[in-house]
Amino acid sequence: MRFNLRLIINILGLLWVLNGTFMLLCIPISLYYNDGDWYALVLAGFITLAAGAIAWWIGHSKEPGQLKKRDGYLIVTFGWLTMSIFGTLPFLISGEISGFTNAFFETLSGFTTTGASILNDIELMGRGILFWRSLTQWIGGMGIIVLTVAILPILGIGGMQLFIAEAPGVTPDKLKPRITDTAKRLWLVYVLLTVIELLLLWVGGMSFYDAANHALTTMATGGFSTKQASVAYFTSPFIQYVIIVFMFLAGTNFTVTYFAMHGKFKKVWENEEFRYYLKFTIGFVIIVSLVVWSVTGNDFERSFRDSLFQLVSVITTTGYITADYTSWTPFVTIIIFMFMFVGASAGSTAGGVKIVRHIILLKNSILELKRQIHPSAIMPVRLNKKAVTSQITYNIMAFMIIYFMIFVAGTLLMAALGNDFMTSMGAVATSLGNIGPGIGSVGPLDNFAHLSDPAKWLLSFLMLLGRLELFTVLILFAPHFWSKH
Amino acid sequence: MRFNLRLIINILGLLWVLNGTFMLLCIPISLYYNDGDWYALVLAGFITLAAGAIAWWIGHSKEPGQLKKRDGYLIVTFGWLTMSIFGTLPFLISGEISGFTNAFFETLSGFTTTGASILNDIELMGRGILFWRSLTQWIGGMGIIVLTVAILPILGIGGMQLFIAEAPGVTPDKLKPRITDTAKRLWLVYVLLTVIELLLLWVGGMSFYDAANHALTTMATGGFSTKQASVAYFTSPFIQYVIIVFMFLAGTNFTVTYFAMHGKFKKVWENEEFRYYLKFTIGFVIIVSLVVWSVTGNDFERSFRDSLFQLVSVITTTGYITADYTSWTPFVTIIIFMFMFVGASAGSTAGGVKIVRHIILLKNSILELKRQIHPSAIMPVRLNKKAVTSQITYNIMAFMIIYFMIFVAGTLLMAALGNDFMTSMGAVATSLGNIGPGIGSVGPLDNFAHLSDPAKWLLSFLMLLGRLELFTVLILFAPHFWSKH
Repeated sequence: MRFNLRLIINILGLLWVLNGTFMLLCIPISLYYNDGDWYALVLAGFITLAAGAIAWWIGHSKEPGQLKKRDGYLIVTFGWLTMSIFGTLPFLISGEISGFTNAFFETLSGFTTTGASILNDIELMGRGILFWRSLTQWIGGMGIIVLTVAILPILGIGGMQLFIAEAPGVTPDKLKPRITDTAKRLWLVYVLLTVIELLLLWVGGMSFYDAANHALTTMATGGFSTKQASVAYFTSPFIQYVIIVFMFLAGTNFTVTYFAMHGKFKKVWENEEFRYYLKFTIGFVIIVSLVVWSVTGNDFERSFRDSLFQLVSVITTTGYITADYTSWTPFVTIIIFMFMFVGASAGSTAGGVKIVRHIILLKNSILELKRQIHPSAIMPVRLNKKAVTSQITYNIMAFMIIYFMIFVAGTLLMAALGNDFMTSMGAVATSLGNIGPGIGSVGPLDNFAHLSDPAKWLLSFLMLLGRLELFTVLILFAPHFWSKH
Repeated sequence: MRFNLRLIINILGLLWVLNGTFMLLCIPISLYYNDGDWYALVLAGFITLAAGAIAWWIGHSKEPGQLKKRDGYLIVTFGWLTMSIFGTLPFLISGEISGFTNAFFETLSGFTTTGASILNDIELMGRGILFWRSLTQWIGGMGIIVLTVAILPILGIGGMQLFIAEAPGVTPDKLKPRITDTAKRLWLVYVLLTVIELLLLWVGGMSFYDAANHALTTMATGGFSTKQASVAYFTSPFIQYVIIVFMFLAGTNFTVTYFAMHGKFKKVWENEEFRYYLKFTIGFVIIVSLVVWSVTGNDFERSFRDSLFQLVSVITTTGYITADYTSWTPFVTIIIFMFMFVGASAGSTAGGVKIVRHIILLKNSILELKRQIHPSAIMPVRLNKKAVTSQITYNIMAFMIIYFMIFVAGTLLMAALGNDFMTSMGAVATSLGNIGPGIGSVGPLDNFAHLSDPAKWLLSFLMLLGRLELFTVLILFAPHFWSKH
């Protein structure tokens, strides 16, 4: 047996049980608001629970054996895929979303914490179902934390072994034994920040329901809102600033936040990715604020807040909107489009390329010039004052190039399906980067409903690819993966 | 002394002498057509010759010493730069182009074989000056051949040592001794093809003058035309097919053409880059022809010819135009835009990234997936059945990433200067790739005259960067380059 199929099925079953349980949690909300969808949640929840229990039981074994790397790839990809398939049930059974393509797009957009939506009138949706929609992102965020901490470093994807080396309780040589411990600590940070944001938004004037939904989707850097106008609906500057702060935190390596919570600010500042994240964001916020101020005629605070909100929203791959960034001169549109390829910190819930990869690519590019002059000298890239092996730099370059290849191929396919230049580029960039809104006809004031079914499937595939750091999914297409050797 | 300044000045002087001589060659043409510009050519020619002779004499020495790598970078960058500065003289003295910015843009666009123009009415220009404009591209093409064969492999830029390994008379271990021999053979191919094309175009109905100009700028993959409408002016299918064939040849590694001329077709077909170049072009021509056929309502031959012409023109970075490719659905525009990042073969006069680099990037990406499964196995990329060292693959990845970084930074700057999204992207892509026309307001039916001066300087810098394979120019900005160690 090449794969430990039993154990894979067993673990997937466990994930579905979790999924079903979360669906059942939405029932009280549906009943409280009397939206009539409770039966759909009951049915969906029990079907998912039952499927999970059966799979768990089939896969159960007294001698489960070991999981190998190949098993890991299968669990991760099929985990996200099957969670999304079961996750469509509440939408489909209640009839709130019609058609499997739309339901799957919306649910996968949730579990991948993307936030791209096909809903034309979010506020007409039942409250229970809408809460499930927000929950998919929050669950996705939890999944990403465990993926980053526990699974990707073992699979060795795109330099991920590097980024987690500084996590609490992790010593580079003894990574595995403390992984569950690390994951638990970071989950605690995640849950804690969600609760704090919920309370602040509630205090700020949101209804408890809206506060809960937005707290869930902020911390997941997901960006699903309960309002058609997204956060623009909530005009209170306090609410908007709270969301900005928590988007930024959700895009910060949770390890860094963990150290900050324990008063170890020196460790926070020593983290190079965090410093770049902060400086890069501040730099562009200043530039964009000035442009927006001069273009819109709004007062400076408003221009600053709008610029800050949109830039933080895109760089953290959240995708909330308080203003139409495509109306702020082509210069700003290009900055926003560029931000779609940045992504926030590794070890956060943000998608995209991640800042640490850009740092290494940038440093390596500068070193390449030095290496031209002194070809025999060994000049490794340094991150957090430590030398990065050339193997990891190599992996990260390959990651970036594959990312661009997929972007180009995706854009070509979107255009072949009849979409215009900007829409094709924007939809692909935002899906691959797990952001949400794009440019063109999928801009901040639009949604993805009008796209054709093939386009929705293509973008769904890209969301999954981007969220799982490309390789986890791509590897399943390599014939080599399925061969005996 | 860190640099061999004397020898550098000596060699630059020699280049200027060559430059001045070529200017003087245009005098008979000016006199024949009685365009009144002969005095400008005389003056420009003698100034350039004199400057060259003085520099040569100052730098002359009985013990010239050795040239080191650092000297090489200076000679190449300042060679192209100073040739372009002297090259503006005929335009400026005759008054055919007013303003140094415009004249420099046009001349550098010539020497870098780009073909982007600021001329609003080409057909009003004096014939002698126009011939000088075409000559700048042809001289640039000669420069590129010697650069690729003799200089870049020694500087070790972006894997260039690899591409030339198969050149006639070159054995990998004994590269240097036969370099001048190789350069001479390839120059012969270049001159021979120019003459054959001239004759064919003349036979096809062009005036001898137009045939000469177009032959010069085709073989350089430059794309300057004597007509405002570019090759669209010559409606004869024969002429257009001749130009297509010679653009394709100009984008083929001259080594490959050399072997073909000697009947060694097996060697031609063994060249992997040539096979990919052919297949990639044919594949997209079929797709685009069908789209154009269905969109324009033209007959199939015309649709095929228009598609073939535009695609070959862009992939070879020539930049001639027979039809407005931006009017053929966004899908085709995106294909053309993507082609701007391809570039034809290494060892040809084409600019851009070059197909061989893409082959290595693509193969390495696929291997990365295999390496994920078997991290300990050594799997080098193979080109022409030989293993490519991981060092070269590393260099090529770094080259590609720096290319994209420059593209992004350039686009941002162009947008900051007030240009729209498509124009910014198009102008930067076409300048960096040395193509000529772009998309947006610098599309196939437009030119670069309306851009602001800062934009023209930015694009000039990008043309130079792209033509000299990035590193040759960038390295001069590294403080390390000028330091003593």
